[in-house]
This record gives sequence, C-alpha cells and structure tokens, in this order.
Amino acid sequence: MPYRYEIRLSGEGGQGLVLAGLILAEAAAIYDGINATQTQAYGPESRGGASKSEVIISDEEIDYPKATQIDLLLALTQEACNKYWPDLKDSGALVVDSSRVTELPKGGFKIYHLPIIETAKDQIGKAVVANIVSLGVITAISGVVSREAVEKAVRARVPKGTEELNWRALEAGFKLAHAQTG
Amino acid sequence: MPYRYEIRLSGEGGQGLVLAGLILAEAAAIYDGINATQTQAYGPESRGGASKSEVIISDEEIDYPKATQIDLLLALTQEACNKYWPDLKDSGALVVDSSRVTELPKGGFKIYHLPIIETAKDQIGKAVVANIVSLGVITAISGVVSREAVEKAVRARVPKGTEELNWRALEAGFKLAHAQTG
Repeated sequence: MPYRYEIRLSGEGGQGLVLAGLILAEAAAIYDGINATQTQAYGPESRGGASKSEVIISDEEIDYPKATQIDLLLALTQEACNKYWPDLKDSGALVVDSSRVTELPKGGFKIYHLPIIETAKDQIGKAVVANIVSLGVITAISGVVSREAVEKAVRARVPKGTEELNWRALEAGFKLAHAQTG
Repeated sequence: MPYRYEIRLSGEGGQGLVLAGLILAEAAAIYDGINATQTQAYGPESRGGASKSEVIISDEEIDYPKATQIDLLLALTQEACNKYWPDLKDSGALVVDSSRVTELPKGGFKIYHLPIIETAKDQIGKAVVANIVSLGVITAISGVVSREAVEKAVRARVPKGTEELNWRALEAGFKLAHAQTG
C-alpha cells in the first residue's frame, strides 16, 4: 500500500500558515527525501480573512495534491476548526489553539488542545511565531518528518536575523507536544 | 464553458519562484476576487535544485490544482525549459530568460525571450528580484490578473522595507513585456 499523509493548516490571514506549509513540505522533500506537495486554495473565504495551507507527504509521486481525508488538522481559529474538522479521519489528529478554539468537535480522532499562541507570546515574546511553534507540535505528533529536516527547512526559509528566534519557537513546539503526549 | 488558466513558474532554487506563485495567486483571489490555487510539488528533482510553482486561476472552484495543460510557462533556466515546455498548450505563451535559456523549443505557442535577470540586475540593482520582474511580465502577457491586484499582492508579501525596490522591479517587468508585445 502506498503511504500518503495529509495535513491541513488552518486559521486566519497573518498567522503565517502558508510559510508553515511550505517549510513542512520542504523539510519532507528536500531534507528527508520523500515526496511532498504544498497547496493553497483561495476562494471567496480568502477575502474574509480565512487561510488554509495543505501539505501531502507520500512515498509515491503525488497525483492529487488536495487534502480530502485529513490525517492531521491544525486549527488556530474556532471558525477554521468548525469548518474543517469534518474532513478529518477518525484515526487522525486535531491540533487546536486553546485560546482561540474553545468548542471542540466530537469524533474518533485525537484532540491536542494546546496553548500555541500563548507559548509564542509568553515564551518567545512574539505571537507571530505561533506558526513555527505549530510546526514543532506537528512534527512531534505526526512523526512523518524528522526533527532535523524541519530545523533545516526553518533556517532556510525564515528571514535572515530571525533564525534564532524561530529555532526557539520550534523547540517550544516540540516541548508542548511532548508535554501532552508524554 | 468554465474558464481555467494554468501558469507554471520554473527555474532553480533561490530564484524566488515560490513567492512569485504565491503573490500571483493572492493577487487573483484576494484582490481580483477570482478563484486561485498555488501548488509546489517537490520530488527527487528538488534535491537537484530545480524549482517549480504552479498557479491555477478559474471562475469556478478548482478541484484539480495541478497544471497539466499549461497556458503560460515561465522558464528561468535551460533545464526547466527543456523539461516543461512539452506541457505547454499550442495556444500558450512561453516566457524565458534570454541569458539562461538559449535553445528554444519549437511549437505553436508564442515565445517571449526577454532579459529578465539582466533587467533585475542592471535596472534594479538586484538579481534576486528577477522573480518580481517576471511577475510584471506575466501580468502584462497573460491578462488574467489586474495590474492593481498584483501591485497590492506584492506589497502585502515582500519583506518590510523592500516594497519600493519590488515595486520598481514589477514596473520594469510590465515595461519589458510591453516593449516586446508593442
């Protein structure tokens, strides 16, 4: 059976989810050597400020780069959570920010209700790195990309001079996931 | 008949084609109000330094975000041109950088052989903005997104402090295309 893992990163514009998706796909493909696609679909909802970025990781060439049966959904707003959780597999994982998502859906999937934005703000001093904290969380929970690959991909993509800040954000994300998963 | 326009931006890593694709999709969707997707597919070739970014623009929801029958192909390296021109429609447009692409394919499509990288280097003073010069060229040639939308999308995405530089690069791209198309 070919292996295919679908990730959707969702929230609102300005949360840096496009960059997060890009980093995840580059970590998988350039540094871990597996196939990956990264897609943004913009529709009428983009004008309302909603944002989503999708990453598919597979051991085969990816013919259909859209996520339809999601293995891991990140939702950084309640609106994104409400809209996208029905596409999540029962065996999947739902990662939500605990300050922005308070009503949780019910299903067979695992829920990780984590203070992602708060960690970015309080531990790193910049709410804007919540996307990189999220990356750390996703890397730890999904296990589909290596930590080393994600570290390299972050360094290659973030603006010069912010590498250290982003590295700390990633580290904080790894810890946040491990604190919950044990 | 639904309208669908497929663009592939190709070249090598470091040429900023991912950002260019993102800006084009956001111009179409956020500022012009049409549907757009933007996809990067990374395979074994990514490790070799090749890079491509695809943008689909449509008046309908986009179910299949991969480009298969290309309306406009940008190639900033000979390797990318050789690899991708067979996917170009006969009615399409091939935009190549004249310093990096010297062997041109033959077909029904129109060829725009333009000094994109040289313009970035000589007129703007930074080869790295060749991606934004390309965006100006593509906007003028394709006619699928408005110039105003692309200007807004560029401003929203480029690093703070580089807006003026990138605006000039975009302007230089518009002029380059108009000089050839008349």
